[in-house]
Amino acid sequence: MNNSFKHIGLIAKLDNPNVASTLMLLTTDLAKRGVSVTLDETAASYFSEPILPQCSRHELSQRCDLAIVVGGDGTMLGAARSLAETGTPLLGINLGRLGFLTDISPDEIHERLSEILAGQYDEELRSLLHAEVIRDEKVIHAGNALNDVVIHKWDIARMIELDTTINDRFIYSLRADGLIISTPTGSTAYALSGGGPILEPNLPAFILVPICPHTLSNRPVVVDENASIDLTVRGSGTDQAQITCDGQTNYSLLPGDRIQIQRLPHQLRLIHPTGHDHFNTMRKKLRWAE
Amino acid sequence: MNNSFKHIGLIAKLDNPNVASTLMLLTTDLAKRGVSVTLDETAASYFSEPILPQCSRHELSQRCDLAIVVGGDGTMLGAARSLAETGTPLLGINLGRLGFLTDISPDEIHERLSEILAGQYDEELRSLLHAEVIRDEKVIHAGNALNDVVIHKWDIARMIELDTTINDRFIYSLRADGLIISTPTGSTAYALSGGGPILEPNLPAFILVPICPHTLSNRPVVVDENASIDLTVRGSGTDQAQITCDGQTNYSLLPGDRIQIQRLPHQLRLIHPTGHDHFNTMRKKLRWAE
Amino acid sequence: MNNSFKHIGLIAKLDNPNVASTLMLLTTDLAKRGVSVTLDETAASYFSEPILPQCSRHELSQRCDLAIVVGGDGTMLGAARSLAETGTPLLGINLGRLGFLTDISPDEIHERLSEILAGQYDEELRSLLHAEVIRDEKVIHAGNALNDVVIHKWDIARMIELDTTINDRFIYSLRADGLIISTPTGSTAYALSGGGPILEPNLPAFILVPICPHTLSNRPVVVDENASIDLTVRGSGTDQAQITCDGQTNYSLLPGDRIQIQRLPHQLRLIHPTGHDHFNTMRKKLRWAE
Amino acid sequence: MNNSFKHIGLIAKLDNPNVASTLMLLTTDLAKRGVSVTLDETAASYFSEPILPQCSRHELSQRCDLAIVVGGDGTMLGAARSLAETGTPLLGINLGRLGFLTDISPDEIHERLSEILAGQYDEELRSLLHAEVIRDEKVIHAGNALNDVVIHKWDIARMIELDTTINDRFIYSLRADGLIISTPTGSTAYALSGGGPILEPNLPAFILVPICPHTLSNRPVVVDENASIDLTVRGSGTDQAQITCDGQTNYSLLPGDRIQIQRLPHQLRLIHPTGHDHFNTMRKKLRWAE
Repeated sequence: MNNSFKHIGLIAKLDNPNVASTLMLLTTDLAKRGVSVTLDETAASYFSEPILPQCSRHELSQRCDLAIVVGGDGTMLGAARSLAETGTPLLGINLGRLGFLTDISPDEIHERLSEILAGQYDEELRSLLHAEVIRDEKVIHAGNALNDVVIHKWDIARMIELDTTINDRFIYSLRADGLIISTPTGSTAYALSGGGPILEPNLPAFILVPICPHTLSNRPVVVDENASIDLTVRGSGTDQAQITCDGQTNYSLLPGDRIQIQRLPHQLRLIHPTGHDHFNTMRKKLRWAE
Repeated sequence: MNNSFKHIGLIAKLDNPNVASTLMLLTTDLAKRGVSVTLDETAASYFSEPILPQCSRHELSQRCDLAIVVGGDGTMLGAARSLAETGTPLLGINLGRLGFLTDISPDEIHERLSEILAGQYDEELRSLLHAEVIRDEKVIHAGNALNDVVIHKWDIARMIELDTTINDRFIYSLRADGLIISTPTGSTAYALSGGGPILEPNLPAFILVPICPHTLSNRPVVVDENASIDLTVRGSGTDQAQITCDGQTNYSLLPGDRIQIQRLPHQLRLIHPTGHDHFNTMRKKLRWAE
Repeated sequence: MNNSFKHIGLIAKLDNPNVASTLMLLTTDLAKRGVSVTLDETAASYFSEPILPQCSRHELSQRCDLAIVVGGDGTMLGAARSLAETGTPLLGINLGRLGFLTDISPDEIHERLSEILAGQYDEELRSLLHAEVIRDEKVIHAGNALNDVVIHKWDIARMIELDTTINDRFIYSLRADGLIISTPTGSTAYALSGGGPILEPNLPAFILVPICPHTLSNRPVVVDENASIDLTVRGSGTDQAQITCDGQTNYSLLPGDRIQIQRLPHQLRLIHPTGHDHFNTMRKKLRWAE
Repeated sequence: MNNSFKHIGLIAKLDNPNVASTLMLLTTDLAKRGVSVTLDETAASYFSEPILPQCSRHELSQRCDLAIVVGGDGTMLGAARSLAETGTPLLGINLGRLGFLTDISPDEIHERLSEILAGQYDEELRSLLHAEVIRDEKVIHAGNALNDVVIHKWDIARMIELDTTINDRFIYSLRADGLIISTPTGSTAYALSGGGPILEPNLPAFILVPICPHTLSNRPVVVDENASIDLTVRGSGTDQAQITCDGQTNYSLLPGDRIQIQRLPHQLRLIHPTGHDHFNTMRKKLRWAE
């Protein structure tokens, strides 16, 4: 990995008081190193004057050979969905609170950048989910997720029912508040609150975690990441459900809608400082060390 | 209990093909016994001609000394909320599938009625919840529940936060999809799907069951039924939550709303055939016997 | 509560390096106040010379009107079992780490003692369990527990089977690694690890928590504390099980043994500094505040 | 797969009244087909006269090109451990009750054998675990497991502590009753009772399921099946733990013992009738279809 990064894009969390100083520090540091810097729209919003080039995340992912994300894990999720298809690697800088995806703290930026720009870093591949909603045999909605795709009832009054198949084999008619389909990355997020297991980040598998299932034996199921997961929303016309990607984008579903979920062909390239230890982060965030 | 029931009200599940024949059987049987019968509006809807007197559930509960409910547990929940405050006892006839509250099957109606009208029955008292929503120091909504009061996020994208106190003592700021406050009666319903324990039906206690809590140690908490439970919805203006009673009535909440939950002063009087065994029903419905 | 404590017994955790200094501090402080002090055998073991009177815990509970326990929650459990039947109140001093039962830290001893000896304290009653093992119609073993009575398989190879009745009503034939019967006090201990709910400390109820049950719907059951719980160990001659009280005393069981569990007639009187808040301890120990 | 099975070994559950008739049926049927049959010792014990050749399971696995197991899943586990290293495929016949591994019922033996001997069958590969206990740098015990390796406390009084590493990376110091390391095959057995997820049978992964962990966030962890799992038993001399393979073989552990767990290089070849559907079995056994 000795060919280092020459064109770096900066992506930032919106409207956060701690972002500005970190962006300043980053742009100054990168300028001194002679690296060209491009801002996405949210990063640009922190600068009163347009000193640096600015573009959409999509363009940014084509122009740059590395994107640095300043924010929390939520900001990384959005960036990952935008950049996944070009293969631009991502590096996450947190705002002072350790994240699973943003593992560089602001006070170590200079030191870590030196290492990473010198080619000393670990690169990890993370799988994403791709979901399509099919109504009347047409794809009417599509979305990607680094953490999870959630099918959830919209109205509190009753459970939804989801006919679930994996690779065209019938699994169950799930009656529950909803179903979380999670990547290993998402296994420490919402899926964990729903009772799911923790997956090693690189395990080639997805989890199906029922939310408050009517049948207590409807436990989380772990399937191969190459599985094709198919859900059909059952029920009468008054039921309503939603599909949500990474807890960030919503789309309303109707009875009869079919949701097809598969692995996105591209994987996220995630950059860490050398020696990054995922279980170390887990011990801290889940307080295993206590 | 030798003073038997003389005025019986009939309450029925709406629009169910199995109700009509059971109602016919009941009215014929009761007529032969010389018992006066009054129908609520849903029961009346099954008769093409108005042979029997009909009134609202509220009036029915004042006129009758027993209400017989034909339907499933859901029908019983609605009837219990309507009748709780007059103390009229309820007897549940299921539609062929055993319920926790409707334990008489259609084919044993004649036999069981003979016993019950001869004064041979068990009577059980069940506690209900009373919830009030307070906004700007005014009660803007109130509801009763035999199973549960649920505070639930409305929009899937983020957790809600509920400041929770019991008898004015701070318990936690819960970050979760929602919170179920359940009676012992409700402990085998939604609360069970959410990970709650099963409570003996007469235990003087309520359960707080967090739904998909962010903090894994936020386990279900069982409190005295005389506790005053106070929840305040935190968060910015875009968050939205709902309060639902028995999964049947909804009301939208705003940040800052306070929900006060207490035991309803009146208890439901539930009539069972002599020797009714709650755990026998549980073994069957939860398949413990398998 | 103006009649204060004149005769105080000291009970200590065995062989702990932090106990000696706390005992010294306590005995000096109490001597200055003119309170008579008696040591149990473990407390006495920290003194090289017999300056203070010493006796068994049983005698101590008869001589003293308050027992102060220096140790952790485990030491309190043992003291509670010894003292429960005389009604001597207990006050717990921890060794630097907050406990659910030992809520006074060594550095606040002087201040708290001043308040408590001046009659300013909260007193709480906690229920205990009493278990008897019956073989061939004779009681062959009996024990008390402040936290829990656990019936557990001894040999790892197979589940045990427990026929369970409550007030002579059959509940289930449980196939599991074991069964925890817990008080509200024990609900934050082993029962919590087994998946049980948290009970308010004064709730008049016990919990049955199956350990790794074969049937997933065998969820924890909360029953009235006046219930009579009856367990019969089923199985062939090679199976083996144990009964354990508070994780501290063991007794081996044989197939056919019957275990009768009821509330101990006496309750533990637990002394706290005024304003003690159980849920405050819970927030800290379960890290709800994080 | 047109080269069919010519030499078939029969393995049977010990001392079960339903085995004899099934063995008779099998031997008669196979004789008519001209297939040579060898019995293991338990199968031979059902025949009063030694009409058929008999040998140990180890020899049987070398002589035969298929082993048919008559019994339940437990019998299959034992057979799988004996035969795994020679690659002899296994076919399971249950005793009237569907198993996850024994999916042919006695009344369909003739029909299924016709298909399978005609080369019409599905073959599945299942991974096994291999565990070694290391004391004073020597391997003092080794065992294989098709379902699970369990490290469990022996004495009920206290938790054990296990320092756990995966591929030499520290995961946690687990304080719990024990730890289940399970294959996908075992994920529907003991691991499920302990709160683990269900894994597709061919997923290249193992699960670590803590039993009653002290820290509630110590949730099940799913790791790559090529991981090297390393456990060190911590604690003082009085603690005691055991290692158990498939709930069938036990070995006592001492503090300081290191347990190394890896995938067994050989996989089990499991034969099913054509069209076998694992999730169909799951729906029936876990009552998802209810």
